[in-house]
Amino acid sequence: MSAGTTYEALSVETLPERLKDVAALASKVGADSATWQVQEVGDGNLNLVFIVTGPAGKAIVKQALPYVRLVGDSWPLPLYRAFYEYHALTRQAARDPGSVPEIFHFDETQALIVMEFLSPHLILRRKLIAGERVDGLADFLGKFCARTAFRGSELSMKSGDKKADVGLFAGNVDIPAITEALVFTDPYFIAEMNHHTEGLDPVVANLRSDVELKVKVQQALQRFVSNTETMVHGDLHSGSIMSTEDDSRVIDPEFAQYGPMGFDIGMLCANFLMAYFSQPAHRGDDLDVYQEWILGVIEEVCTSFEVEFRHLWATERTGILYPSSLFEDQGQDSAPACGAVLAGLWRDAWAFCGIEMHRRCLSLAHNADFEDIADPAVRAPLEARNLLMGAELIHKAERLANASAVCAIARGFNGKDVL
Amino acid sequence: MSAGTTYEALSVETLPERLKDVAALASKVGADSATWQVQEVGDGNLNLVFIVTGPAGKAIVKQALPYVRLVGDSWPLPLYRAFYEYHALTRQAARDPGSVPEIFHFDETQALIVMEFLSPHLILRRKLIAGERVDGLADFLGKFCARTAFRGSELSMKSGDKKADVGLFAGNVDIPAITEALVFTDPYFIAEMNHHTEGLDPVVANLRSDVELKVKVQQALQRFVSNTETMVHGDLHSGSIMSTEDDSRVIDPEFAQYGPMGFDIGMLCANFLMAYFSQPAHRGDDLDVYQEWILGVIEEVCTSFEVEFRHLWATERTGILYPSSLFEDQGQDSAPACGAVLAGLWRDAWAFCGIEMHRRCLSLAHNADFEDIADPAVRAPLEARNLLMGAELIHKAERLANASAVCAIARGFNGKDVL
Repeated sequence: MSAGTTYEALSVETLPERLKDVAALASKVGADSATWQVQEVGDGNLNLVFIVTGPAGKAIVKQALPYVRLVGDSWPLPLYRAFYEYHALTRQAARDPGSVPEIFHFDETQALIVMEFLSPHLILRRKLIAGERVDGLADFLGKFCARTAFRGSELSMKSGDKKADVGLFAGNVDIPAITEALVFTDPYFIAEMNHHTEGLDPVVANLRSDVELKVKVQQALQRFVSNTETMVHGDLHSGSIMSTEDDSRVIDPEFAQYGPMGFDIGMLCANFLMAYFSQPAHRGDDLDVYQEWILGVIEEVCTSFEVEFRHLWATERTGILYPSSLFEDQGQDSAPACGAVLAGLWRDAWAFCGIEMHRRCLSLAHNADFEDIADPAVRAPLEARNLLMGAELIHKAERLANASAVCAIARGFNGKDVL
Repeated sequence: MSAGTTYEALSVETLPERLKDVAALASKVGADSATWQVQEVGDGNLNLVFIVTGPAGKAIVKQALPYVRLVGDSWPLPLYRAFYEYHALTRQAARDPGSVPEIFHFDETQALIVMEFLSPHLILRRKLIAGERVDGLADFLGKFCARTAFRGSELSMKSGDKKADVGLFAGNVDIPAITEALVFTDPYFIAEMNHHTEGLDPVVANLRSDVELKVKVQQALQRFVSNTETMVHGDLHSGSIMSTEDDSRVIDPEFAQYGPMGFDIGMLCANFLMAYFSQPAHRGDDLDVYQEWILGVIEEVCTSFEVEFRHLWATERTGILYPSSLFEDQGQDSAPACGAVLAGLWRDAWAFCGIEMHRRCLSLAHNADFEDIADPAVRAPLEARNLLMGAELIHKAERLANASAVCAIARGFNGKDVL
């Protein structure tokens, strides 16, 4: 059953021999490893990802690499992130069944997970750039965020189980540190690994001169590092979602940690907003209609989240927070309490949303929605709209009525020449 | 060096034989254990506390009992709380040197701490009931709260050290559970262990019918259980402080956990406010003057806290939060950021303060300030003022200007016939 007692990166050549005794893999693809075909499909930056094909079927083998490979250089990163990815996947599967790939096997020493091969699923970000639609996407994502937020918190969990889980995930230091630096800090000063499109300098200078904005960003960081409300995916963007025409799954939770309940949905909405702002460079005649479809997804994600959260509040509030002994058992409605929790959650979410919109244009890891736009003269004004809207969300996070108000702001910037 | 390989409660008779080889104790009191005199001074509820006297001096031996003894019954409580008390004491000693008793020895198996004998220190609560003053008290307590809050947070600590500590203290489940139930929940419904003074029924009914109040209390609980901003003492009342005429120390941090930065100072101010409201039953001609002295302590505790926190912000901000790269290094003042952090901290603190004022009159563990008033007809109206002010603090926590505003509210209730 073992693939070795010390860590060693797999290769297309060594995988069959090294994993031939992993029963969970053999049962999915076929017992005779000599018949396996292996293909490496990862980007080689952070993980090795193999598709193993045999007479009985296919499976994915994902193995962490002990570094992040950047342009011409590498950044050491502990293998234990596979351990947290595995534990995050099992919790997400329990909290929202069917939302993540099925896990067949985990090998801690090899930092290796054998999991379901999703087909014909493709990365959602590619579909959004290509102008494709996914039925049921918003409902799926809203429910995923609501269920994982609610069921990973003391609204639902037993206090001891929650504390044990917070203790477990507190061991994950280096991965959250990436978010702490790249998302919350680097965009707002001249950090070593930053880069941004030519022409954005005036907008960037304005952001960095805005002390009030930076205070709000750091307050959001303070909540991110010290608010363990629930287990968050931690990196829920359109590159962490795989979809067909009508089925979606969430992948890659190696940034999982206990954090604020509004984190995932805020990051997710930011990525839809960036898809929205980038569309003028990717679409033709269908631009307006497709952009409105994206805004519709944002509104529906948020509605679906609220409806599901309120449903869980009414039916699964088994934790120590807002107990029925204080409300229902005294003949009082707890809906105002749920409303207060949601208000705090959205206030956090819109701030995280604005920050994610900034870092994807200013810090190290940009996203393809904008990066695929070859001409900087086309890219810069679209990114500028995105940056200015991010700032507005951060400033107004406490007083935004709902996702419709957010979409209205997006429409306002979309038509505006801001450079 | 060992007092045994399995836990066994010490007694006055067995202590010398069992601890004779503990070098740290022998060096404090004298090498020949036959000369030791042992006196048990604990209340036997939660811990055994021995004073060991020998030719060379005195020391305290504190040993946890595996239960809380209530009236005629016992409540099992894990011995591991001595482990957390020990770790809390070492952190407090590092973060505010001289603020806690010196630790000489810790034995995890025996749940036993050998520590400095404080003399002629007495429990502050007894001094407040007796109308005594303590020079330097407010400055000491304000600094203790500010230093432990700041230096236990990501404003100061390295991220990895902070996460390791959060993981360590996440193992402390049963002790925080007492606070979660007795402080934040039980006062607001008919809980089994509740009791309150005859005559308070109308006030209690009003509190329990106030849905908005209970929502705010539960929001405070949500922050208490899932906001790991810093290591809090967790039970900082006037019974956890020992003072002479001009020297004070903080003791008994077995409720320590990572929690909100405003928790300790909020609980502390609540206990001074309860001392204030109880004084009409304890004082004679000096009532007005002594009550004003107590309010002066509250104001000075808060001022001292703010001044020290801002000083540490300016001189020791070495953590990942609000880094100088975003402010000073760009020629910008970070004082607005410190102000924003303090505003959030006080908002939390006044809510916790109001909740503590409630639970000490309604839940299981009342305090001597009120309990020493034998006549319920005298006690009830004083407790009623305290309960109503607690509610006002919870409702207004977000918009109280400062401690002076809080003291003004206290003066208002002090003269009022509210029953």
